[in-house]
Amino acid sequence: MSRFFSDKYQSLVPYVPGEQPRDRKYIKLNANESPFPPSPLAQSEAMKALSGLQLYSDARNTALHRELASFYGLSEDQVLATNGSDEILDLCMMAFCDEKHPALFPDITYGFYKVAAEVYGVPYEEIPLDEDFRIRPGDYFSSGKTVFLANPNAPSGIILPLSDVETVVARNPDTVVVVDEAYVDFGGESALSLIPRYDNLLVTRTFSKSRSMAGARLGFGAGNAGLIRDLSAVKFSSNPYNVNLMTAAAGIGALRDEAYTQKNLKTIVENRAWLSRELSKLGFSLTDSKTNFVFARHPAIGGGALTLALRERGILIRHFSSPRIEDYVRITVGTREELSALLAAIKDILEGSK
Amino acid sequence: MSRFFSDKYQSLVPYVPGEQPRDRKYIKLNANESPFPPSPLAQSEAMKALSGLQLYSDARNTALHRELASFYGLSEDQVLATNGSDEILDLCMMAFCDEKHPALFPDITYGFYKVAAEVYGVPYEEIPLDEDFRIRPGDYFSSGKTVFLANPNAPSGIILPLSDVETVVARNPDTVVVVDEAYVDFGGESALSLIPRYDNLLVTRTFSKSRSMAGARLGFGAGNAGLIRDLSAVKFSSNPYNVNLMTAAAGIGALRDEAYTQKNLKTIVENRAWLSRELSKLGFSLTDSKTNFVFARHPAIGGGALTLALRERGILIRHFSSPRIEDYVRITVGTREELSALLAAIKDILEGSK
Repeated sequence: MSRFFSDKYQSLVPYVPGEQPRDRKYIKLNANESPFPPSPLAQSEAMKALSGLQLYSDARNTALHRELASFYGLSEDQVLATNGSDEILDLCMMAFCDEKHPALFPDITYGFYKVAAEVYGVPYEEIPLDEDFRIRPGDYFSSGKTVFLANPNAPSGIILPLSDVETVVARNPDTVVVVDEAYVDFGGESALSLIPRYDNLLVTRTFSKSRSMAGARLGFGAGNAGLIRDLSAVKFSSNPYNVNLMTAAAGIGALRDEAYTQKNLKTIVENRAWLSRELSKLGFSLTDSKTNFVFARHPAIGGGALTLALRERGILIRHFSSPRIEDYVRITVGTREELSALLAAIKDILEGSK
Repeated sequence: MSRFFSDKYQSLVPYVPGEQPRDRKYIKLNANESPFPPSPLAQSEAMKALSGLQLYSDARNTALHRELASFYGLSEDQVLATNGSDEILDLCMMAFCDEKHPALFPDITYGFYKVAAEVYGVPYEEIPLDEDFRIRPGDYFSSGKTVFLANPNAPSGIILPLSDVETVVARNPDTVVVVDEAYVDFGGESALSLIPRYDNLLVTRTFSKSRSMAGARLGFGAGNAGLIRDLSAVKFSSNPYNVNLMTAAAGIGALRDEAYTQKNLKTIVENRAWLSRELSKLGFSLTDSKTNFVFARHPAIGGGALTLALRERGILIRHFSSPRIEDYVRITVGTREELSALLAAIKDILEGSK
C-alpha cells in the first residue's frame, strides 16, 4: 500500500480470481466456464458493433433491457444490465447496505460478497451452513439485514427450493434479499417469478456460465422498479456507460438463440451426471450439484494435494483452503473428452498414492 | 427512491449522460465522439476474441498492460486498464479520498468528479476558474486535498502548460494529484513524463476520443507502482474482471496502429482550426481549445436557444445550464461535411433571429 491509500482499506483483502496460467496449455476446469463458444448469433451481433465503436454505448441500455424484459417476462424498468454480475452485486452492496443494514450471507458461499462488504465498509455477518453444506432458511428470517443468497450456492452446488427462497424473502419484508442465480440455468428454479409479489427481492443473473460469455462481461439485476431505480442512480454516479456496445449486442444475440443455450445446457447436465457417477465409482463423495461444476472429496487424498497433482498433469481444478471445505475440490463440468482426461489422471494419482 | 435505498444517498444527483435521441437521424456533435471508426486493426483484433468469449478475461490484463507500458514508455506495474476512464476516476475517488483527504477540483470541469465524490460520501471543494475559464495553479498549492484536474479542461477546452501541472504536483507532496488527460492527444503535453519523478501523480487516459473507441469502454490510469497497487486492490474488491476480452484486444490493436490515430488527429486539429475561424466570422467568441470540441458563445443568441434551434434542424450540440457557462455551447469537431452543415444551420438561425 502506498502512503496515500485511504485508511479505510487498512484490512482490505481483495478477491483472488482463479488462476489463468500461461506457462503451458491446460485443460481448464477451474473457473466454471462453458466449454462451448458463444452462440454464432451472439458473435455475429457483436461483430456488427465493431465498425461503430466510435460512438458511446447507450447508458440506458434500452435495446438490451427491452430484450431481457421480453425474454424473462418482466418490464423494462425491472431490469438493469451490468458489466458482469459482479457489478450488479457491487451496486447492491452500495445501494442497500450500510451501518443500519449490514450484509448477511452464509459462511461458505461466493467469496465476492465479503470482499465487496469490506470495500464499502459495510458490516456483515456470516451464518454457517449446516453439516451437509445446506442453507437453513430459518437462519435468515427477520434478519434486519440485507441478505445475499447464491442459489444454487457455490462452491457447494446445492440448491434451495424456490419455496424456501420465497419464505426468506417474505420473512424479511423490510430489507432487501439478493438472490444470486449465476448457476440457476443448470437445474434450478428461478426466483424471477416472485418479482411481481415482493418489492424487496433482487435477482442477479449472468451471461458468463450458461450463455458462454464470461469474457464478454454481462450480467443483470431484476427486481421491483423501485429497487432498479436505486441501483441505476448508483450506476450513473459510478460508471454510467458500464456495458460496452459489443457486449450489449452479443447479449441480444444470445437471448435470440435460446435453442443453442438449451442444447449446451442439456450436454452439461448429462456430463455432470456422468462425471458424478464416475467420481463416485472412484470413491469420491459429492454434493448434489445443480450447477456446471461438482464439489467432491476423496477419503485418500486432500483437496489441495489432488489439485496440485492434477495441475502437474496439465489439468486445472479449484481448491479452497477455507477450514470446512479444504478436503474438497471444485471441478467444472467440461466436455466428455476433457472429463475423460480428468478421470484418467485422477485414477493415476489415486493408484500412485496407494 | 425505494424505501430500501441507503440513507447515505438522500441527496445524490446522478450524472446525466449526453442525450442519444432515436426519433430521427442527427448530426451528432454533442458527446465529443470521433467521427472516424476505430482502427481496422482494433476491429480485427476484437473480432478474433469473439469465438473465445466463453473464457474469462484476464483479471490482471497482462497483455494489455504490457502493450500500454511499451507504448507509453512505462513499466507494467505503472498502468491499470479500466472499463472506460470513468472507472479509473471512480477508483481514484475510492482509494485516495476520504474525510481526511477531501477532493478538490475546479467549479467548471468534468461533471463526473462531483458525482463520484457524492456517491462515496467524500467531502469536496470546488475552486472557481478565473474569468477566462483558466485554472490558477496557485489555487491548488499545499491543498491538503486530493486534486482532480482535467487537462485540457472540459468544457472550456483550455490547457494548463505542463510546467504548471508539475508545479501543482510538486506543491502537493502529501496528497495525490489526478490529471485527467481524456483530451490531451488533441494538442496537449502529457504529464506521463513526470511519473518517474513524483509518487503522488496519477494520470488518467481514455481510448474513447482520439482512438475512436467510446463504445468499447477502455481507459487506464498511470502512475507510481504504489498508487497502481492501491487502485488494483480496490478494483479486485469491486469488479475484478472489469475489462472484457473484445475491448482488451481492440485496445492492443489500436496501440499497434498509431499511424491511423495520428492521421485522424491531424484531421480533427485542422477541422478545429477551420471551424473556429468560421465561427469567429459569424460573430462567435471562442476559448483556445486544445481538444476535439470548441466552446463558443454568440452575442445575439443564448447557448440554450442555439442548441434547441440546431436540434430542430437535426444537429445535436451540448449546452450546460450552469451559471457561468449558460451562454456557451460545446460543439464536437466532426468531419468537414458535418461542420459545414452545422455552419449553414447556424447562419440560418442567426439570420432568422435578426
